[in-house]
Amino acid sequence: MIKITFPDGSIREYESGITPMQIAESISPRLAKEVLAAGVNGEVRDLTRPITQDASVKLYKWEDPEGRHAYWHSSAHLMAEALEELYPGIKFGIGPAIEQGFYYDVDPGTATIKEEDLPKIEKRMQELIKKSEPIVRCDISKADALKMFEDKHDEYKVELISELQDGTITLYKQGGFTDLCRGPHLPNTGYIKAVKLTSVAGAYWRGDEKRKQLTRIYGITFPKKKMLDEYVAMIEEAKKRDHRKIGKELELFTFSQNVGAGLPLWLPRGTQLRLQLEDFLKKIQKKFGYKQVITPHIGNIQLYKTSGHYAKYGADSFRPITTPQEGEEFMLKPMNCPHHCEIYKSSPHSYRDLPVRLAEFGTVYRYEQSGELHGLTRVRGFTQDDAHLFCRPDQIKEEFCKVMDIIFIIFKALDFKNFKAQISLRDKVNREKYIGAEENWEKAEQAIIEACEEKGLPATIEYGEAAFYGPKLDFMVKDALGREWQLGTIQVDYNLPERFELEYTGEDNQKHRPVMIHRAPFGSMERFVAVLIEHTAGKFPLWLTPDQVVVLPISERFNDYAYKVAKELEMQDIRVLVDDRNEKIGRKIRDNELKRIPYMLIVGEKEAENQEVSVRKQGEGDQGSVKITTFAEQITDEVNAMINAWQAEIDF
Amino acid sequence: MIKITFPDGSIREYESGITPMQIAESISPRLAKEVLAAGVNGEVRDLTRPITQDASVKLYKWEDPEGRHAYWHSSAHLMAEALEELYPGIKFGIGPAIEQGFYYDVDPGTATIKEEDLPKIEKRMQELIKKSEPIVRCDISKADALKMFEDKHDEYKVELISELQDGTITLYKQGGFTDLCRGPHLPNTGYIKAVKLTSVAGAYWRGDEKRKQLTRIYGITFPKKKMLDEYVAMIEEAKKRDHRKIGKELELFTFSQNVGAGLPLWLPRGTQLRLQLEDFLKKIQKKFGYKQVITPHIGNIQLYKTSGHYAKYGADSFRPITTPQEGEEFMLKPMNCPHHCEIYKSSPHSYRDLPVRLAEFGTVYRYEQSGELHGLTRVRGFTQDDAHLFCRPDQIKEEFCKVMDIIFIIFKALDFKNFKAQISLRDKVNREKYIGAEENWEKAEQAIIEACEEKGLPATIEYGEAAFYGPKLDFMVKDALGREWQLGTIQVDYNLPERFELEYTGEDNQKHRPVMIHRAPFGSMERFVAVLIEHTAGKFPLWLTPDQVVVLPISERFNDYAYKVAKELEMQDIRVLVDDRNEKIGRKIRDNELKRIPYMLIVGEKEAENQEVSVRKQGEGDQGSVKITTFAEQITDEVNAMINAWQAEIDF
Repeated sequence: MIKITFPDGSIREYESGITPMQIAESISPRLAKEVLAAGVNGEVRDLTRPITQDASVKLYKWEDPEGRHAYWHSSAHLMAEALEELYPGIKFGIGPAIEQGFYYDVDPGTATIKEEDLPKIEKRMQELIKKSEPIVRCDISKADALKMFEDKHDEYKVELISELQDGTITLYKQGGFTDLCRGPHLPNTGYIKAVKLTSVAGAYWRGDEKRKQLTRIYGITFPKKKMLDEYVAMIEEAKKRDHRKIGKELELFTFSQNVGAGLPLWLPRGTQLRLQLEDFLKKIQKKFGYKQVITPHIGNIQLYKTSGHYAKYGADSFRPITTPQEGEEFMLKPMNCPHHCEIYKSSPHSYRDLPVRLAEFGTVYRYEQSGELHGLTRVRGFTQDDAHLFCRPDQIKEEFCKVMDIIFIIFKALDFKNFKAQISLRDKVNREKYIGAEENWEKAEQAIIEACEEKGLPATIEYGEAAFYGPKLDFMVKDALGREWQLGTIQVDYNLPERFELEYTGEDNQKHRPVMIHRAPFGSMERFVAVLIEHTAGKFPLWLTPDQVVVLPISERFNDYAYKVAKELEMQDIRVLVDDRNEKIGRKIRDNELKRIPYMLIVGEKEAENQEVSVRKQGEGDQGSVKITTFAEQITDEVNAMINAWQAEIDF
Repeated sequence: MIKITFPDGSIREYESGITPMQIAESISPRLAKEVLAAGVNGEVRDLTRPITQDASVKLYKWEDPEGRHAYWHSSAHLMAEALEELYPGIKFGIGPAIEQGFYYDVDPGTATIKEEDLPKIEKRMQELIKKSEPIVRCDISKADALKMFEDKHDEYKVELISELQDGTITLYKQGGFTDLCRGPHLPNTGYIKAVKLTSVAGAYWRGDEKRKQLTRIYGITFPKKKMLDEYVAMIEEAKKRDHRKIGKELELFTFSQNVGAGLPLWLPRGTQLRLQLEDFLKKIQKKFGYKQVITPHIGNIQLYKTSGHYAKYGADSFRPITTPQEGEEFMLKPMNCPHHCEIYKSSPHSYRDLPVRLAEFGTVYRYEQSGELHGLTRVRGFTQDDAHLFCRPDQIKEEFCKVMDIIFIIFKALDFKNFKAQISLRDKVNREKYIGAEENWEKAEQAIIEACEEKGLPATIEYGEAAFYGPKLDFMVKDALGREWQLGTIQVDYNLPERFELEYTGEDNQKHRPVMIHRAPFGSMERFVAVLIEHTAGKFPLWLTPDQVVVLPISERFNDYAYKVAKELEMQDIRVLVDDRNEKIGRKIRDNELKRIPYMLIVGEKEAENQEVSVRKQGEGDQGSVKITTFAEQITDEVNAMINAWQAEIDF
């Protein structure tokens, strides 16, 4: 008999050789139907693999990333089986599960696989699902594995196998298909219910542009047809909300090949939006005792050697900039921290002056391959809403609490209602890889956990996910489509204070090292604006939106009155446009609805006579006529109510 | 007889061979005493050089740069004569007049000349002045000149002469000293009254660091002792106001060799000041219809080849940045204009949408030799308050008027009372070097002249000073020390619209080229802040100054009350500090006076009891006690009065 410990601490005894699936059955038939993979002593395994010793066991269902991962990994194998039947001689690269679904990189030889071939492949997958073939794990020697794939002339798998260490290699088989794979997998292909192959793309073998380009087929599967339908609908909605599309429609930003890929040009409306966000955060930060600084976008290469960023970003990033005469070498700054360390160092500090909180909307540059670039979410130059808090070890908890307050205000003002946090701590065993004293780590980790508790923030703890230089707290935010984004990180750093030899004079009159906390609630202005566009579908909150009001004269005869209205609103600091085009009013309304402007004011004979405007609210239609001054008051009140909501939280 | 035409258009007849000095004597003995050099048909000449043909003549006095130039150039010769007597065998490089005084680069051989030797040299110059030696111009052949300086073993002069074209060479002699020189000079050394040698520095021969380092001796002379005294006092005051010194005292900015020379780090107080200035200008610009944009700090090298900036800045600037994998080449942007042209191009434009006014506080990077760097006035990275106005040719005048309005508001808000303008137009003859149609130039030049007239701006016209791509208007501002700074340029540009093929659709439905106007009222934030520091000696206007109030508790017992006062003021958006150090109140007052904080609030027993503060105003001392709320109102009123003064001008 062996002892199985469950996550809640309960222990049951089973016969040695029992499988996780049998354990699930022993608990409830319903659980047995839902379980997809198992964690055995922390390792994710097949449900059918026997357990022969005392172990801690966790059963993973669809809700668990580990469960979905096995599900989609098996789906990749299923797709490969279908492909092998449809395209004899096809060769296989790698086929992993990803965050949403799976893909397989394949070499179909002389054949080609296009979008229009996907339904045919889906159909064959459905046929194979009906057979409900068991997925079987088997161990063979490296030599046998090599021979097997050499016989199949699959040079990709041969290359992968030959790089593995000598010893036992695992394969997974279902029906007539065998793949080199570490698993884990579902018990059989019958688990897979709904299938959708989503797209075809090119991908270099092993990501190396000098090697062969393979065909990458993306897909996703679900245990219920309804879930697939919801997913497809979500994807459709996501396409409509694509920030690149809306960014163009609303004239927020653009790219120019002449300037360079991944280097956004912020157009006037996007700049207005971004600066409004920056001013909002600056205001909050001021209340929280932050000091703004401004530092250059380049720095001597030695600075980044000191900080360690050269080792991290040097070789793979933009090459250093030299001067024509003096042989100096500069780097585009990949991070603002070294500059802020230099500012901290530029004057002496007493324990009484800490924390010193230096903030900067600092634009940094990091090279990305052009193929990796994506709208505003993956760029080569971006502006971090960066700050570095230099504090005493005993101040970590309070500083974490304060940063959390800032983040909560932001989430509230921008209508992100659904968020949680992840605390990344050290690995429980391998502690030699972390820098900084054991005692400091203990204190900082405890401080973060306590700060989350105090603030009532639901947080999961991940061991081994801390950076080598300190523990951190990440916020995971769900957008309106239910997609998760990591927004806002608070990171403890014991490394840079050491490398820059930062000091403060303690109460004991001795020199001490401060702790540094990095934090960026938005992350970067580029990525945050992209998320915000997709979250709101471009319908930004009234206080934030670039244009709050557009005045539509029903004919050119009323253009003068329209401009008079606009001017009166502008005097009240309302952001207003006039659509004075010689177009029919219906056309003007349609065009301006696409621009997501919250209020349209229609003006004609009657309005001009009465000094009124006819109000149309976005999504709510006609609101009737009011005096210009009344409308100005209403909209000002509406904006102020929003601002007061978060202002109240910072006027402590 | 010859006809001499004077600047006022009057004509007099004189015998051929008359000298300008004789002309001056013929007009008035007083003028003859004051005149220093003459312009003959536009060429500046010695007063003693005969005129043999009809000519236009202008007589230059001390007030004219040409007069001072001759005066200081002769002073350089006088110093050289003294040096030759004191240091036999000394060799001479070049010795020009400069904006304030003169210098001479000399090679004293085995001797050295230091600051402490300057009085001795001054003394010898005074002795030579008493002799009032005539300064005599003579022409000799190049061969004779070469021989003469070879005999003196002066390899520097030999090198200079050998590079001159064959033909007649001019020398100037006074007493025993002869110099290679084009002149013009004073009639005799007796004109020079007050002498001050100011400093000694090293200077490479011909500015080439691979060649020998010579000794550069700077000096200045004046026709009256009183003028020298005033100059020395001004220099002393300028030293006290040096923005590098005050910038350090007020903790506005710093430099770090680890980041790099010429790359300023803006400290919190400096950043507060700078952002306050930026927000001030943003507010004005918004009212004037400008749209803010944000563009990256690098661009593909092709962009700058298109713009022509690569040809201008390429070889002598920071070397291009390459990417590790894709072989792209980027440049740190030396100018924002190419990026703004790309934004203009990103959407179509109609004649009705113009002007498009794109504004950006854009940080640009230009390499300067480290020896040329100077505080914030000569840096390697700086932020321009840049804007580009894309307009129709018929809008140039109105746009110039509007930019002038902006500049006037700035000068008013920052207390620059003394300014004038310089209009730079084409050369009257060589017109082939300018790009753009004759007709457009005519219109633009006329528009600028008319705009200045309309605005009642005193302006001088300089022919031949226009850039090859368009005429411009520069503002010359006198600071509190009477020094002139060029602040604010408005520049017409026909070149970039051509190079970027910019277009708009005219009323005729045809494509037309817009005109581009560059303008930067501050110039750069760095240089402007430097000028402002020196202009105000760090005593910034109340609305602008980083810290408006500091609260000084008379002992630590009143720290709590001091913080309560600070908080109440902060709630009214007043920028306030607390000096809670355990120091005597006298010490605190002295320390904070050095920080140039406009108001000190002293609080103790009585104040805490009555909820009052004891007010001390900078430069005016004790103002008595008032309630906290009363003080808050007073200071808010004072700031608002300042803001309303310029706000009124933009609320049109």
